[in-house]
Amino acid sequence: MKISVDELAKLINGTIEGPEGRFVEKFAPIEEADDSSLSFVANMKYGHYLYTTQAAAVLVPRDFVLEKPVHPVLIRVDDVRTTLSALLEKFSQVENRKTGVEQPSYISSTARVGKDVYIGAFAYIGDNAVIGDNAMIYPQSYIGDDVRVGDGTIIYAGVKIYSGTEIGKSCILHSGCVLGSDGFGFAPQEDGSYRKIPQTGKVIVQDHVEIGANTTIDRATIKATIIENGVKLDNLIQVAHNVEIGKNTAIAAQAGISGSTKIGSNVAIGGQAGIVGHITIADGSQIGAQSGISKTISEKDQKWFGSPAIEYKNAVKAQIIFKKLPELYNRIQVLEKALKKLDVSQDNE
Amino acid sequence: MKISVDELAKLINGTIEGPEGRFVEKFAPIEEADDSSLSFVANMKYGHYLYTTQAAAVLVPRDFVLEKPVHPVLIRVDDVRTTLSALLEKFSQVENRKTGVEQPSYISSTARVGKDVYIGAFAYIGDNAVIGDNAMIYPQSYIGDDVRVGDGTIIYAGVKIYSGTEIGKSCILHSGCVLGSDGFGFAPQEDGSYRKIPQTGKVIVQDHVEIGANTTIDRATIKATIIENGVKLDNLIQVAHNVEIGKNTAIAAQAGISGSTKIGSNVAIGGQAGIVGHITIADGSQIGAQSGISKTISEKDQKWFGSPAIEYKNAVKAQIIFKKLPELYNRIQVLEKALKKLDVSQDNE
Amino acid sequence: MKISVDELAKLINGTIEGPEGRFVEKFAPIEEADDSSLSFVANMKYGHYLYTTQAAAVLVPRDFVLEKPVHPVLIRVDDVRTTLSALLEKFSQVENRKTGVEQPSYISSTARVGKDVYIGAFAYIGDNAVIGDNAMIYPQSYIGDDVRVGDGTIIYAGVKIYSGTEIGKSCILHSGCVLGSDGFGFAPQEDGSYRKIPQTGKVIVQDHVEIGANTTIDRATIKATIIENGVKLDNLIQVAHNVEIGKNTAIAAQAGISGSTKIGSNVAIGGQAGIVGHITIADGSQIGAQSGISKTISEKDQKWFGSPAIEYKNAVKAQIIFKKLPELYNRIQVLEKALKKLDVSQDNE
Repeated sequence: MKISVDELAKLINGTIEGPEGRFVEKFAPIEEADDSSLSFVANMKYGHYLYTTQAAAVLVPRDFVLEKPVHPVLIRVDDVRTTLSALLEKFSQVENRKTGVEQPSYISSTARVGKDVYIGAFAYIGDNAVIGDNAMIYPQSYIGDDVRVGDGTIIYAGVKIYSGTEIGKSCILHSGCVLGSDGFGFAPQEDGSYRKIPQTGKVIVQDHVEIGANTTIDRATIKATIIENGVKLDNLIQVAHNVEIGKNTAIAAQAGISGSTKIGSNVAIGGQAGIVGHITIADGSQIGAQSGISKTISEKDQKWFGSPAIEYKNAVKAQIIFKKLPELYNRIQVLEKALKKLDVSQDNE
Repeated sequence: MKISVDELAKLINGTIEGPEGRFVEKFAPIEEADDSSLSFVANMKYGHYLYTTQAAAVLVPRDFVLEKPVHPVLIRVDDVRTTLSALLEKFSQVENRKTGVEQPSYISSTARVGKDVYIGAFAYIGDNAVIGDNAMIYPQSYIGDDVRVGDGTIIYAGVKIYSGTEIGKSCILHSGCVLGSDGFGFAPQEDGSYRKIPQTGKVIVQDHVEIGANTTIDRATIKATIIENGVKLDNLIQVAHNVEIGKNTAIAAQAGISGSTKIGSNVAIGGQAGIVGHITIADGSQIGAQSGISKTISEKDQKWFGSPAIEYKNAVKAQIIFKKLPELYNRIQVLEKALKKLDVSQDNE
Repeated sequence: MKISVDELAKLINGTIEGPEGRFVEKFAPIEEADDSSLSFVANMKYGHYLYTTQAAAVLVPRDFVLEKPVHPVLIRVDDVRTTLSALLEKFSQVENRKTGVEQPSYISSTARVGKDVYIGAFAYIGDNAVIGDNAMIYPQSYIGDDVRVGDGTIIYAGVKIYSGTEIGKSCILHSGCVLGSDGFGFAPQEDGSYRKIPQTGKVIVQDHVEIGANTTIDRATIKATIIENGVKLDNLIQVAHNVEIGKNTAIAAQAGISGSTKIGSNVAIGGQAGIVGHITIADGSQIGAQSGISKTISEKDQKWFGSPAIEYKNAVKAQIIFKKLPELYNRIQVLEKALKKLDVSQDNE
């Protein structure tokens, strides 16, 4: 990639501001960019880097207000992240598209495999499994019996998909994620031991879902654990049996959703957050990192924080006071002594 | 499965209450059941669904008190979960039992493999490993040198078992779990670097243990990390080196047990809870989700909650007040002002 | 191993204190040692075991003060952990060193493989990958295209390394860890869906790094996620895209580092701690287990604790008061009533 800033701006429908005649050759984060770099400011928190960067050009939001002169040419666009996404897709070769079947691999004679697929060495395709057109199954992946994988879905190396799981179109499953393992269901017995409750349901993943590395999604006890269209799951997330996650919900790494909970659409859940079982989270809820949600959230589009979580603003206020607890404790003691003295002096009157 | 509710009730020693002549054809969760479904209420929190469900019949506890008429036939049983477990085992075909050795697989010439086992393609059985009768080793699993796997144990696809690990009978190991990786032990050096302390011990898993997907259990420094009979571990749990977990203890997803800690029997640990190293947790302890246990628990059968955890009831009370901290802070300020005024007015007397 | 305590002490430059003529045959933890065991006390918290152990000999710090007579011979050394590490290396055979290429394995014709390597069955070495001398690639590992693995590095069974990742010398990667999976980057669209931001960067791991089982390290959006020399990562850790971790930093299990954060050198991070994105953590910082770090830490060598984390000492004090919140609440109410009474009585004067 070597392109003039003018040409680039036309390509992405951007408005140029700054010196003419520059070229960019590569992408770079703004704090590391040099004078052949195209960079970007998507989050205004990092806007201050504009005043020190040596980048040749920087993508900024259309309404960005410049406070003083800068080195880079500004390219104003409607949506920085989306523009960046389009440019990276266009100019970077993310991963070579592979096709063909490497050997040795194991494909059951009853499996149906679509056109133009890639099946890597040591991949396993079970009985009656169905692999859609243009799907990519990387090496050492396990596609159990009766699993369906939709068109164009990418399954990276070492993904494990238990029997009966259904995966939609254009999904991306990262290495080490496990779909369809048994839900954690046991009946306590009188002698203190547990009897396993067979987990006879399945996992359904709809279209355009991305699932991070080493994330686990358990099969339902009876029906299905469901991940709806457009859901984005980061790494090392736990999704327990019977959970349902609504469309376009995004969940950050190491969060956990307990059994039978229903998460709405367009919910955002922070890293390491935990959600108890058998509750409902309203559409558009935003849940802070490390939060613990112990009750149903019925109001849509609210922010929650803390463990147990409360409304975000209240949580922040309470945490500020929390730091002052030792001081508050002393102030209460001072009050008590003072009052006692007063009380005594009153009694003496 | 299509069976009359009468016949079903006899089979499970249940008492019928409601209209005669109904049939059930499938299991369903109570909130989704239709008039050919058998459903169940194991937890009274969900008892209210009884009054709206269209299920043909519902398993309820023997002593359940009905508050008003319902659509389903009630089948009263001693233990709903255990009955459900038995019925699901009987009527659902959870997973086809497989036998035989798929090719290509790798079985060392010095390994001993029992009768009627399943060994999936791309599974690896190391030198001197011993696989018990009726064991199932799914594809792409790794059974290191000198590992022992007991009779009837199921090892799902992609489990990794380091050399020397011992696994008992009738265990279930889910995909991606790792047993016997090195404990996290290092000697800090003067130059700030770390020198690895070789981890020369092993992992011992006794009988009837279930280990969730992507859970990790490290080998001991010198002797053994031990998981006793009947322990149930959910997904993504960390069990560090030298830990011992007592029989019939159940641990929910993403919890972590630090090195050399000894967990008693029949302990229940909630999701994302963390337990520091070198402590002991008494039998029957119940530890809430996201709790942090920093000290030995000596009293049996107590409930703990919070980070750092305190007695459950106290934690709940303290958390209620926590939310009121900004209000309390104001009330203290009001008190201080009032007292100052009083004090001043007294001085003026 | 059977060695006289005298001979052993000479070997490790230790000073003997206690009866002569003893032999040791094995290592054992101090609480389980018998009279043929060599044991150790590295942490003074466990010093009390010295007075009850039956160990033949115990390694203790040079300056350890004995309070009463003990059974074992004391061997005083400069650094107990380092001495233990050296002895375990010498006397225990941790893992048989393997060499050779097991079949079937998959090695691209364009890959370059060094001398004296081990490549286990079902391992996959992609196009243009470079494997250093004496490296060990265990079964079912995936080395993507263009990956570099340095001399002497050990990659255990089932590790997944995406294309382009660079790994230094003498590293140890435990089973199930994933390097180079896509960072979690999406551009929100007007219809509520997300558009993937291609992750075109890579992961660079320098020398002498150890990475625990099922830990995940995402590739950078544009440049590189970097793990510097001597870093030690425990199991189930999440390292997000664009993160940099400075040399000799140690991170305990289940901790998570969010995107673009820079961790300094010689930092210690406790288990289940979480660190938000786009911040910097100063060299030598110590972060307690389950802590949540939400802001840049600029001061070096400080201890932090809590979620959100504050200075360790203040956090401990605040948590002590937290437990007393219900009591404090009552005391404030008492104060308010008393003051009201006083105020009223004053008004009456």
